Amino acid sequence: MEETFVPFRGIRNDLRGRLLCYKQDWAGGFRAGIRILAPTTYIFFASAIPVISFGEQLERNTDGLITAVQTLASTALCGIIHSIVGGQPLLILGVAEPTVLMYTFMFNFAKDRSDLGPKLFLAWAGWVCVWTALLLFLLSILGACSIISRFTRVAGELFGLLIAMLFMQQAIKGLVDEFRIPQREDSSALEFVPSWRFSNGTFALVLSFGLLITALRSRKARSWRYGTGWLRGFIADYGVPLMILVWTGVSYIPSGSVPKGIPRRLFSPNPWSPGAYENWTVIKEMLHVPFLYILGAFIPATMIAVLYFFDHSVASQLAQQKEFNLQKPPSFHYDLLLLGFLTLLCGLIGIPPSNGVIPQSPMHTKSLATLKHQLLRNRLVATARQSMNQNSSLAQLYGSMQEAYQQMQTPLIYQEQSAQGLRELKESTIQLASSMGSIDAPVDESIFDVEKEIDDLLPVEVKEQRLSNLLQAMMVGGCVAAMPFLKKIPTSVLWGFFAFMAIESLPGNQFWERILLLFTAPSRRYKVLEEYHATFVETVPFTTITTFTLFQTVYLLVCFGITWIPIAGVLFPLMIMLLVPVRQYILPKLFKGAHLTDLDAAEYEELPALQFNLTSEIDIGARRSYAEPAEILDEVVTRSRGEVKHINSPKVTSSTSTPGSNIRGLHSPRLSEKAYSPRLNELRQELSPQPGGRGYSPRVGEIRTSKLGESSGDPGSK
Amino acid sequence: MEETFVPFRGIRNDLRGRLLCYKQDWAGGFRAGIRILAPTTYIFFASAIPVISFGEQLERNTDGLITAVQTLASTALCGIIHSIVGGQPLLILGVAEPTVLMYTFMFNFAKDRSDLGPKLFLAWAGWVCVWTALLLFLLSILGACSIISRFTRVAGELFGLLIAMLFMQQAIKGLVDEFRIPQREDSSALEFVPSWRFSNGTFALVLSFGLLITALRSRKARSWRYGTGWLRGFIADYGVPLMILVWTGVSYIPSGSVPKGIPRRLFSPNPWSPGAYENWTVIKEMLHVPFLYILGAFIPATMIAVLYFFDHSVASQLAQQKEFNLQKPPSFHYDLLLLGFLTLLCGLIGIPPSNGVIPQSPMHTKSLATLKHQLLRNRLVATARQSMNQNSSLAQLYGSMQEAYQQMQTPLIYQEQSAQGLRELKESTIQLASSMGSIDAPVDESIFDVEKEIDDLLPVEVKEQRLSNLLQAMMVGGCVAAMPFLKKIPTSVLWGFFAFMAIESLPGNQFWERILLLFTAPSRRYKVLEEYHATFVETVPFTTITTFTLFQTVYLLVCFGITWIPIAGVLFPLMIMLLVPVRQYILPKLFKGAHLTDLDAAEYEELPALQFNLTSEIDIGARRSYAEPAEILDEVVTRSRGEVKHINSPKVTSSTSTPGSNIRGLHSPRLSEKAYSPRLNELRQELSPQPGGRGYSPRVGEIRTSKLGESSGDPGSK
Repeated sequence: MEETFVPFRGIRNDLRGRLLCYKQDWAGGFRAGIRILAPTTYIFFASAIPVISFGEQLERNTDGLITAVQTLASTALCGIIHSIVGGQPLLILGVAEPTVLMYTFMFNFAKDRSDLGPKLFLAWAGWVCVWTALLLFLLSILGACSIISRFTRVAGELFGLLIAMLFMQQAIKGLVDEFRIPQREDSSALEFVPSWRFSNGTFALVLSFGLLITALRSRKARSWRYGTGWLRGFIADYGVPLMILVWTGVSYIPSGSVPKGIPRRLFSPNPWSPGAYENWTVIKEMLHVPFLYILGAFIPATMIAVLYFFDHSVASQLAQQKEFNLQKPPSFHYDLLLLGFLTLLCGLIGIPPSNGVIPQSPMHTKSLATLKHQLLRNRLVATARQSMNQNSSLAQLYGSMQEAYQQMQTPLIYQEQSAQGLRELKESTIQLASSMGSIDAPVDESIFDVEKEIDDLLPVEVKEQRLSNLLQAMMVGGCVAAMPFLKKIPTSVLWGFFAFMAIESLPGNQFWERILLLFTAPSRRYKVLEEYHATFVETVPFTTITTFTLFQTVYLLVCFGITWIPIAGVLFPLMIMLLVPVRQYILPKLFKGAHLTDLDAAEYEELPALQFNLTSEIDIGARRSYAEPAEILDEVVTRSRGEVKHINSPKVTSSTSTPGSNIRGLHSPRLSEKAYSPRLNELRQELSPQPGGRGYSPRVGEIRTSKLGESSGDPGSK
Repeated sequence: MEETFVPFRGIRNDLRGRLLCYKQDWAGGFRAGIRILAPTTYIFFASAIPVISFGEQLERNTDGLITAVQTLASTALCGIIHSIVGGQPLLILGVAEPTVLMYTFMFNFAKDRSDLGPKLFLAWAGWVCVWTALLLFLLSILGACSIISRFTRVAGELFGLLIAMLFMQQAIKGLVDEFRIPQREDSSALEFVPSWRFSNGTFALVLSFGLLITALRSRKARSWRYGTGWLRGFIADYGVPLMILVWTGVSYIPSGSVPKGIPRRLFSPNPWSPGAYENWTVIKEMLHVPFLYILGAFIPATMIAVLYFFDHSVASQLAQQKEFNLQKPPSFHYDLLLLGFLTLLCGLIGIPPSNGVIPQSPMHTKSLATLKHQLLRNRLVATARQSMNQNSSLAQLYGSMQEAYQQMQTPLIYQEQSAQGLRELKESTIQLASSMGSIDAPVDESIFDVEKEIDDLLPVEVKEQRLSNLLQAMMVGGCVAAMPFLKKIPTSVLWGFFAFMAIESLPGNQFWERILLLFTAPSRRYKVLEEYHATFVETVPFTTITTFTLFQTVYLLVCFGITWIPIAGVLFPLMIMLLVPVRQYILPKLFKGAHLTDLDAAEYEELPALQFNLTSEIDIGARRSYAEPAEILDEVVTRSRGEVKHINSPKVTSSTSTPGSNIRGLHSPRLSEKAYSPRLNELRQELSPQPGGRGYSPRVGEIRTSKLGESSGDPGSK
């Protein structure tokens, strides 16, 4: 992304890009049909449950001024508005832990002032929001988001892991508290005698671990061996809400002599209780705030603005990681502008503002990648079956699948070419076809096993649309009305869910995967190579990986330690922002450039050869920011940086495929089928209709894939 | 096995066979060194914990006449004697559930007789044992064990699954009881108020599921990716005892206001408590039993004799399944004779007798297979490394590994040839070696990756020796002294362990695997084919598999139902023995002979072509009973029955191998490397020094392996 701070330019670029695909954003969502409900409900639970828990936390900290009703309302309101008029619809908005910390700090400050007090707290917080909104307007107009390119993987993933740690900490703290008497309760109640407290605690252990284990298992249901495909798909899509239902059901099994308060359940006032609406009219009281406090509100506002600037941008960035192969442009500047408006709105009606949340936003993208995979898969399976019924040859079969695949690709106006084609057929399939007779003979299931092979042909793609975000936000809004039902969920199930979210956010985080690599026995490292893995595993020496990861871990622990400091804790995003200069100026002195590029590719390091040709750089830079770097890069620089070989994809859970075996042939330096089968390349030529071409359509993406296969593999093959 | 009921012949044959390898039984055990402790402790816990639990059960049922001290003493005494003078040292002896049921029934009968009563119960039980021993002597002398060949897989596996169900039932019943007040306790104690009972129950859930999940995981530690090899090996070997320690430790975490009785712990008197030794002098009272009761004791004795005959033989048979490739002969007749003596001994000193137990006996063999695998592996890795340092070619490397392997094979006098050689090198390795230059060039790790490939070369073998059995029996004996420590184990950990044993006994049971196959989605059945699988999966139509499995399942449920009938329950072994005529006379009318052979190979069906040549049949039969059928069979009949292609091996957990990929190439009808690489066979010829031979040593076992590779695979390869 270009770093020119010309006012409004970033916002204008964002708006232009997103408007081009705005209609398709809706059409694509509706075309997905009923299946869109799977990612929707998944994200709804991931969004609503923490928000309810944060609401409970705020209620304790603000003496009941803000409850779960307000946090849910803010999340729903901001979510609906953002999904309709926002830039990047993959971004999920919600009231986050940092906001809770800030509001707690503000309340502690306000309640002891005689001319402010709890009565005027919401009005004063409204002023804080006004200032925050102004600062956000300024930042977005001046193009501050341009520096997002400096928020490299190292910063984003560290932040992601920090949030995961905070979630896990909340889960553990919550579980421990189940053995204690809650602060707000009457400690003389029956359920707080030692025996029932111990019962409550052990029962909480059962419920939370039960939820955690079954929810984690259910996400993998698609690859289970047992049960019908329909059932497996249903469990994988709706397993998490289902498990919350199941374990809530289990919590009702004890009866008879067990007191009603065991296990403890969510606590929140019904939205129709008296007093629940007091805050909505806060705007009337804002003028009663003393002028000095209106001015003073600027101080917390700066902190919140910095926090939101970072948090919102990184959440958006993590939802658009390169591995997802997104087709539509990002919208950092415009989304920050909109966040300013949303903050203002929330402040004026006395509810805490929402911002982009981690890990829900990347979870949203991942679940949409699964959805897209299924839609593509169903279409291709149907095409392949039809083609085989017409006695097509393998070449014709592949051709018709290519065609069907291209039809499924959205013809986007702002794109010069479609990003990628179908992957090539497995070499083994081609070999088998040729061994069974002529390559032109009709194929059958014994050569091309439709169910098994199609997964290997599909690249990672994401169903980018606005519907799932809108629906989940509306469902969060519905929670306000459904409060009596939500209150039946035991708090222990909630802690299990927090742990589930922390664990679910880990796969795909390279920082985390590097930490795991450190604990991998040297004799087992080949297993990493046999699976999907990032470039650095092969190109960077292990000691360098170790040093880099240890540095990052220490940094993470320092950040985590800071969150424990009572008030200064809210400064932890500053600590992460400090990583940007550290990454840019200090790390290059400690690590080799090439290694750093593989471990943490920063955009400003990627195109060193072109930095004198300014027009071309701007041009490429602008296009590269569309989160699809490899294709365009390949036109200019080939194999100059590690990203070209990047195959670390997010795990698309729907796969029945055995990608390992395919990748192994492609990437393991030990064994490539080409090494002993020169006949293979001849066959490939036979299969290819264009002379000189390798696949069916000589697109950039495909040629890249071919080069990939050639550049890696066995050195003896040439 | 021949079915000639000539008196003493079976015993004589058994003794002759086992005496030949008796010295090696000890020498081999001591040569294994410290590693022998891994299977020993594993089996010790699997043996001791149920015995303690059965002791508790007996104590309740016999008003304290028999306690865990007596059951442990019986298990230790019989185990020590059997391991030293017994025939088959893989067989584990112990007090089993059926014995508990029988003793309970006998006590209920005796306690109400005025001239018998609890006082003379043990003396009367002594008479029952005397009669039982006489019957067992008769059975063994007359060669009743010859009909063991009619106890086909269908009966043995059904019995195994039934025992697993009984263990699981005990686990569930035990857990449910944790929420109730135990019978023998004072119900007014603090820990039995509703709140503490509920606490105890939920805590028991945590402890038992904790043990179950961690124990199951620890068994797979060897294939974990993280941690050093030493640590992984240690956890895999000693994970189960370790987890019992860990969860017992966890049970001590609650303190303060939690009463001492929570969680409940094992209950047994210390062996030095007053009265604990009363039963040992029971022989003095046996003459006080009225004569009519001495005669009447014959009735329960027949039932126990039938039970022991079946239970002991099937446990021995399951410990010697074909897949284990055992090298030493079985000893059914002699072991039954010894069991008679042991029963007599136990009866005379007033303790319940032991017999061969399931699932501990097959668990014992499996753990010894893992041990043998590690020993072979270490040796071969060292040989390969040394050979590579001397710049050997691949052919030389393989040759020296073959040699080392043969040295590790015990030169047994009673065997004409060693059973099997090292498996052949992977085709891909040979191909790679040839592609890298001449086949005579020195190999390095990039061609032959020692750590990865050696596992694929090793066949399944078992470390057959007496030491592990002796040591575990002595450790069980030590439990009597260690009672104060054992009493610290919570009962809930015990229920978790029961569930663990039930689950651990399932893999390798083809009946269970067929049940799973029924629930496997049709589109996922290819996954079964990609892994180790039995012949029937490929040769028998799915509807036949379904019908056969459903029949077996219904039969199992009937047997399970019978165990619920209060007194007739002990008759359930008769129900399983009924399977023998059902299998022999009814099933052949319902299923095709070939299918039945693949699903359940009965010995009397295996050699139809030879039944007129009596001398040869006897000869072959006698050798075939040495549990190594395929090699000898191959001399006479080739590919006449499914067993030749049998590759369902017990899972040797130590493998770092990826057997799936290897087997896939060998067995999948879809894709064989030979299909497109005719060069491969030339290479094999190059590698082979003997003209006409295929491997290094033209042994029967190896030629068989080669035939195997040839007979399966792609039809287009010829």
